[in-house]
Order: sequence, then C-alpha cells, then structure tokens
Amino acid sequence: MPESIFQIDLQVRDYECDMEGIVNNAVYQNYLEHARHEFLKNMGLDFARLTRGGINLVVIRAELDYRFSLRSGDRFRVSLHLKRLSPLRFVFVQEIERLPDNKRIMEARIIGTSLNANGRPFLPKEIEALLSPARPVTSK
Amino acid sequence: MPESIFQIDLQVRDYECDMEGIVNNAVYQNYLEHARHEFLKNMGLDFARLTRGGINLVVIRAELDYRFSLRSGDRFRVSLHLKRLSPLRFVFVQEIERLPDNKRIMEARIIGTSLNANGRPFLPKEIEALLSPARPVTSK
Amino acid sequence: MPESIFQIDLQVRDYECDMEGIVNNAVYQNYLEHARHEFLKNMGLDFARLTRGGINLVVIRAELDYRFSLRSGDRFRVSLHLKRLSPLRFVFVQEIERLPDNKRIMEARIIGTSLNANGRPFLPKEIEALLSPARPVTSK
Amino acid sequence: MPESIFQIDLQVRDYECDMEGIVNNAVYQNYLEHARHEFLKNMGLDFARLTRGGINLVVIRAELDYRFSLRSGDRFRVSLHLKRLSPLRFVFVQEIERLPDNKRIMEARIIGTSLNANGRPFLPKEIEALLSPARPVTSK
Repeated sequence: MPESIFQIDLQVRDYECDMEGIVNNAVYQNYLEHARHEFLKNMGLDFARLTRGGINLVVIRAELDYRFSLRSGDRFRVSLHLKRLSPLRFVFVQEIERLPDNKRIMEARIIGTSLNANGRPFLPKEIEALLSPARPVTSK
Repeated sequence: MPESIFQIDLQVRDYECDMEGIVNNAVYQNYLEHARHEFLKNMGLDFARLTRGGINLVVIRAELDYRFSLRSGDRFRVSLHLKRLSPLRFVFVQEIERLPDNKRIMEARIIGTSLNANGRPFLPKEIEALLSPARPVTSK
Repeated sequence: MPESIFQIDLQVRDYECDMEGIVNNAVYQNYLEHARHEFLKNMGLDFARLTRGGINLVVIRAELDYRFSLRSGDRFRVSLHLKRLSPLRFVFVQEIERLPDNKRIMEARIIGTSLNANGRPFLPKEIEALLSPARPVTSK
Repeated sequence: MPESIFQIDLQVRDYECDMEGIVNNAVYQNYLEHARHEFLKNMGLDFARLTRGGINLVVIRAELDYRFSLRSGDRFRVSLHLKRLSPLRFVFVQEIERLPDNKRIMEARIIGTSLNANGRPFLPKEIEALLSPARPVTSK
C-alpha cells in the first residue's frame, strides 16, 4: 500500500465487543467511516454540512478483508488513502492496524460517489480538489 | 402497573449482546424507543414525519430499572402506557418481559415533551389527543 | 441469483437511521449477520452455542454492493444462499430487497471459515452438512 | 455536584447521530459506560478481566436527565464520581458537558452492584477499595 495520507488513532470501547469478546464485524465499518469523515473535516469539508448543502457522499461498494480481531481495550490506527477510480467514482483505500505492535487487523476498499439533489452521481468541486495528486497530511 | 395500551414482541439479535453474553444496557433504550415510535405510528403519528414537520419529541428524563438480563435469541415483549405528567410533559411507563415465561426484565419511565422550532416546550394537538383518557389498543 | 434458500423479513427501526435519514451503512451488516444466524438456528445450529463450544465462525471477507437506501419504517427482506468456496471456506450470497416493491437495496458476498480453539481454520461436520447440495428451506 | 474524581474527553462521531441530527439517547449510555470502564481500568480494574474472573458488575438502575443535545463533531467531557449507596450497592454520579463551552448536556445516576457466579449480589474487595473516601484522580 502506498504511504497513507491520513490516519487517526482510536481505542476499542467495551460496548463495541460482542459475545465472542471481539469487536463485531459491523463496528469496523463505523471506525472506517469515522476516519473518512475526520479526513474530510481535516481537508475543510464537514460531512454534516455537505449533507445539509445537498451533496450526498454515498458508499456504493465496500470490500472488507478481516485479518485479525480487535479486543477490549486495544488501541488501533485507521489510515486511509483517497484515489480517483473513474470520472464519477473514488475509492478510499483503508487499513486498520493494532497498536503498538502494528498487527494488521483489516484492509478495506470503500468505493463512493456523490449524488446531487436529484439522486444523480456527480463530483462536486470540493471532492474533485481532494482527488488531485495526493499530498501528505499530518496525522492528528 | 395498569393494563398496557400498546405492546410489541421482539427477539434479541446476536449483535445486540456484549462480551458478557447478555444484551447491553444501552440496547434496551433502543427497544423502548422502537416500541414508542411503533405506538405513535399505530396512532397515526410518524416520528420521522413529525420531526420533519418541526415537532421534536424529546426525552428529558429516563428512569430504567434493570431486573434481569436478556440473552441471545430470547423473545420478549415491550409494553407501554402513556400518561400526562404535567401541562407540558408526558410519561411513557414501559416494561420489558421475556417470552414465553413473562419473566420481568426491566421497567422504565420515559419522560418527554415536545419542542417547537424555537426549542420551546409545547404539546401539539396530535400529542394532546393521545393524552385523553387511555383507550385500549390491540397489539400487532 | 439462484433461488434463495433462506429469508427473513424485517423492518427498519428509527434508531438505525443516521443524520441523512437513511439506514447507516454499517447497520446493513447487522441485518446480514442476523439473517445468517437465524439461518443457522433454523438448521439446528445456534451461533452462541457454537461459540461456547469452541467453534468460531468468522467472516474473512465481505463484499457489499449498496444499490439504494432504506429509510425509517421500510420493511425489507434479507435472503441468503450458502455455498462452498474452497475446502475450508464458504460464502453466504446475500441480498436485501425492500418490501413490498422488491426494490433491490443491496447485495453481499460474505466469505467465512471456522476456527478451532488454536485459531486454525477447519470446517466442523455441522457446517459441512450445510454445504451439501442445497435444499430449499421454508422461510419463517 | 462534588468535584469529579475521573473524567475523559470524547468527540461525537457521525454514526452516533440519528435522523434528527443529534446524538441518539441510547448512545449517551455508551458514553457513560465507557467512562466508567475507563475509570475502573485507571484504578487497576479491567472490566473484561473482572467478567472472565466471575465478578459481574451490573447496573440495576439508571436515572438519566437529558438537558441539551450533542451534535456531529461536538467535543464533550464525561465525568464521574463513585459513592457507596448501601452495603451492597454503589452509585456512579455522572455528567456530560460540551466542550469548550461547558454547556451541561446531561446528568446521570447509575446504580450498580456486583453478582457472584451464583447471581447473588456481593461487593468484592476490588470494588470495596474504590468506595473508600474518594481520592482525586488525574484525568487522561
């Protein structure tokens, strides 16, 4: 994977674990989404404000490869890399690794587009700007 | 408790259980809310539509007494009884019991009001209508 | 898609909707998982009991294609079809459609295996039995 | 409220907001629980390990007073104060305030006990130790 352009560090909360004592599969999608929204915010784009402004960013496909499970209290890093996939689609290449041992937990490819008020795909200039040649972003 | 005026039957889903193998405390609030919204819908009031129409029903206090835990696969009944508490406040007296043995799982008192667009409490006529002398409602 | 061998009908609950007023992406994974666990139960296999017995069914890859969004109150059907993918891996081909208009909401391929107490993949006989030539199952 | 003996700072994640654009009522219970578990960990008690060791800390009553709503991106502080309530029961007095303006969001009283393997209430020495005269704890 190319060097990540954004990352956040989080920690598993007990209510995110299921009866197997591990983080439930669906919860990783929450982690991944949170990292994407934090990335957007870091780039000056607020997801809630975009939505209210009629720009709906939508996920059209998610590919999630689960390697290993996170458990209660584990610290982990979610990183992402944003790339254009086609004229109207982009992909967030994401990865979760446990800290501090960098054990690979999962990888994900989240493919999205944005819809205008009529439900038609289009890429607003705010998103286009993010798809220019990637520039490094300091993590928080 | 007086006879309940509304009830729905649900079943625990595995992802609602935590690492103790029981339904997480917060999840019961989801069950209780779902029963309240189903009750409103049954009375001709759609929560989503009320919200879009500027009527925000809000919970101002919740009292939850946990008696016993639900586990994976348990079926249960959520019942409710709606009463006026003061000119601008109402209370949902709710109860969850396990099925088919009617084991008492929890009781709750959910106190609410509604806010207008300016954030001021008021009871719209749709809600007032529900607070007239209770009439029995057939469960679904 | 071949005829589905199992299906359950559910309804969106308001707490499952996010600030866009639609069901959050991660919640669909809950729906899909619930359908799989109900399928297993219907075949005489209880997920919670399997787990306690040392048989850990794990998802190793999820491919989720989101076509359209579910909203507050929508009824929908989750269907599934189980197939062997390799000696130690199986795939649940799943689909969610809205009711009653059968609008396609999403498709998913959930690839799994099972791990023994040492964390090594193996397929216990209970799962092997499910991978024999598919037989129709009546929906609930 | 007496000075808090523990506090953690968190931030609302978008997936925690519901279709009203505010944090769903049930989610606050997650925040409160997370703060309690972090407190225990800070005192050398790990909730997951306690559970596996046969000490089940359980909530028997929750009183939640909702004052104001948190929204997407809001930062907030969860504080707590632990007190003995009776020989076998303790109470976490908790509070959530928005940052940086210290707007009061909610207060809670979470009453708990612990159960031994037979389901009988008892307070293990690890918990007794926490109920000695409160000593200040530095926040994280």
